[in-house]
Order: sequence, then C-alpha cells, then structure tokens
Amino acid sequence: MLPDVQGMPDQRGVALDDVGIEGLRYPLLVADAQGAKRETVATVDMAVSLDANVKGAHLSRFVEVLHAWRDQLAPDSALRLVEDLRTRMGSGSARVHLAFAYFLERQAPVTGARSFSEYQCALTASVSTGDPVLTLGVRVPVTSVCPCSKAISDRGAHNQRGYVTIEAHPAAIGEIWFDDLIAIAEASASSPVYALLKRPDERHVTMAGYDNPVFVEDMTRQVALALRDDPRVAQFRVRVVNDESIHNHAAYAQLGWNDGAIGGAP
Amino acid sequence: MLPDVQGMPDQRGVALDDVGIEGLRYPLLVADAQGAKRETVATVDMAVSLDANVKGAHLSRFVEVLHAWRDQLAPDSALRLVEDLRTRMGSGSARVHLAFAYFLERQAPVTGARSFSEYQCALTASVSTGDPVLTLGVRVPVTSVCPCSKAISDRGAHNQRGYVTIEAHPAAIGEIWFDDLIAIAEASASSPVYALLKRPDERHVTMAGYDNPVFVEDMTRQVALALRDDPRVAQFRVRVVNDESIHNHAAYAQLGWNDGAIGGAP
Amino acid sequence: MLPDVQGMPDQRGVALDDVGIEGLRYPLLVADAQGAKRETVATVDMAVSLDANVKGAHLSRFVEVLHAWRDQLAPDSALRLVEDLRTRMGSGSARVHLAFAYFLERQAPVTGARSFSEYQCALTASVSTGDPVLTLGVRVPVTSVCPCSKAISDRGAHNQRGYVTIEAHPAAIGEIWFDDLIAIAEASASSPVYALLKRPDERHVTMAGYDNPVFVEDMTRQVALALRDDPRVAQFRVRVVNDESIHNHAAYAQLGWNDGAIGGAP
Amino acid sequence: MLPDVQGMPDQRGVALDDVGIEGLRYPLLVADAQGAKRETVATVDMAVSLDANVKGAHLSRFVEVLHAWRDQLAPDSALRLVEDLRTRMGSGSARVHLAFAYFLERQAPVTGARSFSEYQCALTASVSTGDPVLTLGVRVPVTSVCPCSKAISDRGAHNQRGYVTIEAHPAAIGEIWFDDLIAIAEASASSPVYALLKRPDERHVTMAGYDNPVFVEDMTRQVALALRDDPRVAQFRVRVVNDESIHNHAAYAQLGWNDGAIGGAP
Repeated sequence: MLPDVQGMPDQRGVALDDVGIEGLRYPLLVADAQGAKRETVATVDMAVSLDANVKGAHLSRFVEVLHAWRDQLAPDSALRLVEDLRTRMGSGSARVHLAFAYFLERQAPVTGARSFSEYQCALTASVSTGDPVLTLGVRVPVTSVCPCSKAISDRGAHNQRGYVTIEAHPAAIGEIWFDDLIAIAEASASSPVYALLKRPDERHVTMAGYDNPVFVEDMTRQVALALRDDPRVAQFRVRVVNDESIHNHAAYAQLGWNDGAIGGAP
Repeated sequence: MLPDVQGMPDQRGVALDDVGIEGLRYPLLVADAQGAKRETVATVDMAVSLDANVKGAHLSRFVEVLHAWRDQLAPDSALRLVEDLRTRMGSGSARVHLAFAYFLERQAPVTGARSFSEYQCALTASVSTGDPVLTLGVRVPVTSVCPCSKAISDRGAHNQRGYVTIEAHPAAIGEIWFDDLIAIAEASASSPVYALLKRPDERHVTMAGYDNPVFVEDMTRQVALALRDDPRVAQFRVRVVNDESIHNHAAYAQLGWNDGAIGGAP
Repeated sequence: MLPDVQGMPDQRGVALDDVGIEGLRYPLLVADAQGAKRETVATVDMAVSLDANVKGAHLSRFVEVLHAWRDQLAPDSALRLVEDLRTRMGSGSARVHLAFAYFLERQAPVTGARSFSEYQCALTASVSTGDPVLTLGVRVPVTSVCPCSKAISDRGAHNQRGYVTIEAHPAAIGEIWFDDLIAIAEASASSPVYALLKRPDERHVTMAGYDNPVFVEDMTRQVALALRDDPRVAQFRVRVVNDESIHNHAAYAQLGWNDGAIGGAP
Repeated sequence: MLPDVQGMPDQRGVALDDVGIEGLRYPLLVADAQGAKRETVATVDMAVSLDANVKGAHLSRFVEVLHAWRDQLAPDSALRLVEDLRTRMGSGSARVHLAFAYFLERQAPVTGARSFSEYQCALTASVSTGDPVLTLGVRVPVTSVCPCSKAISDRGAHNQRGYVTIEAHPAAIGEIWFDDLIAIAEASASSPVYALLKRPDERHVTMAGYDNPVFVEDMTRQVALALRDDPRVAQFRVRVVNDESIHNHAAYAQLGWNDGAIGGAP
C-alpha cells in the first residue's frame, strides 16, 4: 500500500483559497446556442479550497472529473460538474474555468461570402456556500475608428483592431449564450471584423466604420448599457482594448457592474 | 484650434472604473535595495477613473507623466507619481503598474561561481479616496521536488521548475523591498534556481532538493507564514505554480491575506 | 466597378518570396491515423510568391481556398489544396501551414486510467517547381532525468518537462502519420508525460525515469537514428528543448538530416 | 572527483548541429550608435556544434562566457565573444543570439513632445569555417494605411499597426547600426508610430498616413530597394506583418536577398 502523502495532517494552521491545476489542454464537446454539440479544444483550470489541517489535494482527481464530463459541457452540466468536483474533493469551495475557441459562420456584409469568425469564450462555474454560479466570458475582435482623429483631420482617421471582453453572470441558466454577448460586443464597435471580405465588402466596412467612430470609452459604455438593460444578465464586467495603430501600446477602458447601478449612474 | 473631442460632455450617465493605456514599454531607472538607480525596461499600465459626464480621457497625458518621472522610480516617488497623475487627469482615482526584470548577482552554492538571476518584479501605486497605496510584486523561479513521488518510489523523485508570485502591501513605505520578498520565496522551495552551476553545485542542488521535498501547498503556506509574521507587511497574496515534469499542465496553490488572519488560522 | 489596386502593375522590379496571411484561426476537420475525421482548431499561415511586375496579392482568396477545403484535410488533400491555391493565385510557388492540437487517448502505465494527451501538430504543404511537398510536424511533451545529476549525486536527480519537435518529410504520402512520430519522440525520453496518473502510476513513472536518464543530446540522437532507419521518412529535422528544473532557462539540441547522412555519421 | 558524464564517449555516430541554451535572460551593456554603453535586458540563445564521438556539451560554460563579456557588447566584441565560445567548447561552430529592447528618444512631428520608442533588436554572431559573421536584427512598429481600402471607398481607409523586421549582414563591421535599419523601416511605412502624440501631432500623423497608403508588399519592396542600394549591407531578409484592422488575422510579405539580386530583378 503506497502512503497517502497528500492526505496527511498539516500542523501549520493555514487554509488555502485555491489548490488546483491550470493550463490543461483537453478536447471537449460544448453545446452551441441551438444545443448542438461542437468539438473544441479547451484550456482548463480547476481548483478547490483546502482545509488548514490537510497537507495537500489529490490533483489527479481533477482530471478524472473533467474526463467524465468532457462530452456534455453546457451551462447546466457545468454547474453539476463543479458540484461533483467539490463533493469528490471534500472541499468547501470549487471552481472550474474552461477557455476555448468558439466559431460562428459569418457572411460578408455585401457579397455574402461565408467564413468563420473565431471568438475566445470561457465558461466558469464556481461554488462555495449557496448555489453554484455560472459566468460566461467572450473576447470579441472588432474594428474601431478614432473619433478624435476623424474630427481633427481633413481626411482619414486612424483605426485599429480592438477586443471587447465581457464576463456576464446570467440571471437564469440557459437564457443567454455566447452568441448574444458576441452580438452586443460587435454592435458597440465601429464595425465587426471578418475572416473574408471581398472588395465591395471592404468598401462597406471602411465607410461604415468611418461613419461610426468610437473610443474605447464609448464601446465600454455601449456594452454596459446593453447588458444593464438585458433582464437575462445579473452582473457583468466589460473591458475594451484597442491595439492603437498610431502607437505601439494599447488604450483600454473597463467597468464592473455588480449591484444594479452602472458606475456613476444615479 | 482643434476640437477637444475627449473633453465633450457625455449623456449616457455611465462612469468608468478605468480608462488608460497598457503594454507601453519604457526605459526606467528603478532604485535597488541600497537606493542605487538601475536602468531597466518596464511594461507599463496606467489608468484613471472617468466621470459619467465626460466623453473620454486624454491618453497622451499618461505618457507625459511617465516620461517626467522615468528617472526616479522608487517606492516613495511612485506614490507621488500616481498623485500627480490623478491631479493632472482630474480623476477620482488613478493607478500605475510597472512590471520589469530585476537582477541579483548570485553565487553558486559550492564553487561560488557568479551569475545573474532574473526576477520579474512589479511596482503598483494606486489612489482613490485616502492615501495612495503601494504594492510590491515578485515572481521568483524555484525548484520543487515532489514529496509524494519521493515517498512512494524506491529511488528518484519528480521535480520541476516552479514560480512563486507574491504581491505585498507594505506596512510602511521603504521598509521592505523586492530582495526581501525574493528571499522569502526562495526559502519556501526545495532549492533556488541559478543561471550558472558547476558540477559540485549541481550535486549540492540535487541532493538539497531531494532532502527537502515540497508541494505547491507547502510553498504557499511557508510564504504565507513568513509574510504574516513580518511586521513590514500589511497584506499579501501568494501564488505558487509548478510546471509539473510528469504532466503537460501545471499545479498551483494560492492564498490572499487581508485582515490579519491567514485562511483557516484561528 | 471598383478599381483592382492589387492587380495594378509595379515598376520597382522586386519579386517577393512570400505574400500571404498568418495567424488565421479556423475550424478544420483533420483525418487521424485511421482516416476518421476529427474537428480541431488550426492556426493557419498561407502564402504565395509574387511576380516583380504585380503590385499585390488578393489576400481574400486565401480564405476562400481554405474555406472550400476545410472539411477534408488529410495528407493527400493538403497537397491538392496547395496546388489549388497556386493556380488560383497565378503564382510560381505556394505554401500552406496548418498548426493544431491533436489528442490521443492514453492509459496510465499501471492503473490504466484513461485521459487525453495533447500534441501540437502541423501539416505543411508547399509547391514551387516540381511536385508538391508535404511536411508533418509534431511537438511532444516528455520527461527527462539528467544523467549528470544522477551520476554525481548520492540520491535524487533533477528532471524536467521537455519538448521533442520533429519535422519530417515522408518518403511517400500517407505511409507515416503524427502517431508514428509521437511514438518515436516519446521513446527517446526518460518517460512520456500523462494528463492523469494515480499513485501507482506516479511511482512507476518516477522510477522508470530515474532508471533511464537522458540529455537533450541523447534524445535528439535517438530520434535521429529512429527516423534515419525508417524507410517512410525521406528528410527530417529534430529539436529537443528541456525546461531545466535547476535553471530558469532551457537546454536544447537539434539536428537536420537532408541527404542520407546524419551529422557526423560516415 | 565527480565523474564528467558529458565528456564521455558516444558510440552512436551522430554529430549534432546545435547544442546550447535558450531563453536565458541577462542584463547586458550594449553600445549605441555613438558608442555609448546602455544597460538593457537580453534574451540569450547560445549554441555550438557537437562532434559525433562526444556524449554532451558542458552547458555551464555558455553562461561563464556570457558573464565575462556582458559589459562590452558591440559588433566587434560580439565576434570575439563567439570565437571565445567556440574555442572554450572545442567545437566546430558556435552561435550567439542576443535579443533586447532598444530605445530611441523621438519627438512628435508637430509639437516636438519627447518620448521613447521601443525597437526589438537582435545581435547574432556565428562562426564555423572562415571568419565569424555578424547579423543585426530590428523589429520596427509602424502604421500602414491600405491603398485598396482608400481607392475603393468614398471616405476613410482602414489602417493598422504593422511590424517591419529586418535581418542584415553588414558589408563591414561597425559601419551600419540599428538606428540605420530602423530609419529604413520607418521610411517604408505610411507613418512611424510614437509613444506620445498631442492633438496637432495626431492630425499630422492621420493625414500623412492617409496621403501615403502602402501594402505589406510595398513596404517590403521599399525596404529591399533601400538595403540593396546601401553599400554597407551585404545580405538581408525583410518581413512585414500587418495586424489588419478589418480582420482578426495578419497580412505579411517577405523577401530574402543573398547574392546581389533581389527577387525578380534582372
């Protein structure tokens, strides 16, 4: 019988917030908005809390739990997975974070040419006291045209690729999905980006963007207003980063909304 | 006269937590533990809050403020920098985060051969209501030998490179410095790592590590105890990550201490 | 009719080796060793040469070609894809590089516990004069125990995660696949790595590794000998990198074999 | 006396192209164009060839050699360093690659506001048979405005941050320096980028870029012509990548020039 070193007592009296694994790459089946399963590759972080009187956590169990659930990841099953993990580990709290590429087929705005757009998405389930909590995350690439550059210049305006990141805690499970958050993010920008644009599409995107310039501040506020007014969203955090085309650094804005009031709103 | 687009009013009623720049790479002079200035290259993030009734922040001012302070970065001047930034931007809160490589000359444990060890360090200064607050950050590479692998095997034990990350809020400015946090991190591991080890040193490091196996849980607890008992530290967060040599993913543990009690301690 | 700027003449007299796109993330169906299609996410680079008298390449066509072939990627179809690309672009040469995660279900060596191991794989097809050429690439995580550390120490030996990278040009299409190269890479190391190891497995892996210490030089040579003696391989390049556990830098060795003789062999 | 495992004979008959270290971060003093020494942080790769009959290279010697030379890195001393390394290791060939941030103080084009621009630079010295060879590398961030988007749109034009990478082998040591290559790269683009631009500068940069649209193909050709016509340059490679603002992938072009004729030139 091999000794159970992790299960030995610990005398130091220090409980740990999180013990777990990170950076595990795993093939998963994730449900899309219509409930169909899609195979993707996730980067997985999983953790539990550790009591003060125990030496260590049995890390192999994280992978066993993940392996057992890998072909049925959807919002409701993610919540059951994290409860399963907490029970299995005998811990006070547990957390699972799955980050993966999510693709939507898009049509170019004029020619209708089809291609896939990639969105980095994440599903986080956590539980401590009370019911388990789900968070959806999306990172959406967009184009933004600078309002200042347009206003102060006789012609042209600098523009760049930006990324709108949203983390949202749904008011009820299964009512809102990545596709909804992606749509809100894209609507806040000067234009979405596309993998495939033919010349008439490029003309359209160029002029539509020029006619709709936005700062990172504007995009953050637009997303915040849309999410605040959406009854499917209970809490959110939004962050917009522009990889400035006239600088070698980025501009960003962010806002968290936790309790029914956005920032300075009355 | 060019229009001031950022200075225009905004009607949406949404204040922003942070507006700023990130990923700016800049040459800085940082004081070492003895007060001597060392040139290094920092990755800089700077942000301020934005009132609900203003359209945008003037981002060029961030770089102006940084440029003015770049040759005198030390704990006390970082606090004055962030106050300068808040005043200059007319904002309710401000934050500056400087991440940079910090080198210490080390001697190999047996031969005394000299080389430099790199530590990723960070200086964060923030101010909202009340006095500005400083946080020191270090990321320290170490070796850890697995206690379980040693206990269950007749010979050998898997070991790997790990990283101990500490963020600490000092009780008083200037009393504790990166070198102190680095020493605490290295003391928690099976062994420090070195850029240069000759054969007698490699023998020493191998055997010293084998004789002192630690889990990520152990390292996290050892650092936590050392920082809790250090009157120079008011608050801290510690995170230890092992790039496991028998897996293709990492193991980690973490703990935040904010109010005088570590985790499960009474 | 929109002007065709890319199709305009260029007077500078400078032909370009490569014009293309890189970093496109796309969902692809890749055949496994048994010919079954697996969905994965690829990072795609595609390029063609550009004649001296033409201003630019029509980059949207790259995505059109990829989109048309995305559900049938296998060694033979990759060769047809690159020919299709060259023809479509009217270019002298063309190249397609697809990098993606490839998973194999593994069993732990003692308990037989099942989990997936990830291998970074790549399929490169290129054509200029003559027939199109295929290259298979794999990056295989392994464990290596240091022979020097073991020999000079009374107990223990430092070990670490390493990566064996192989690029191989097959002698004939379809005769060798990623699985074969992965097996050769894993056989060269002290031990494979696994996502899931129970305690009896960890004991086995620890002792098997300690009994089979190898330098990066050894692993590179073992892979080179195996590939040289394999009639399915016409050319190859091998590179082994160890993320040293006693240093904060890596050790590596590499070798290219192009013409029937490995390095110093007679 | 500890056994010398690396120095033992090897029976496999496989010589290795490269054995070395990579990813070592080290503080270095690099000479600028005026010969003044500047402290920077380098990422260092060093390698030597290994004869077929020797088991391994003594990797600690790489760090000893680097440490001895760290305060005097300039083109001529880099060549002596690599000769020193080859001799010290008893190898047929040796190579040293130092990558580091290099800063130039820039003035904004209208207001003259001062800030630092970062350029990723590299110094590579290698020797096998014959004299040692030096290569200078620069990676220069720029802005590019798309000529197609401008031509097909009634207003605006998409633009983005791009990177011009040059590797150049000087005709004679010390005659050309990073600053010269950076100037050639920036001159090929729609505009340089700056860390600090006030509004009159932003107006200037926006309009100057709009008036000077370039494809990656154009930038590559402009750099190639400038380097071909520069008697200080013997060989070069140029690569330009645009982080397209209307796509989530990059466009790129590249060209190598080795023997006096660029690409399709007669």
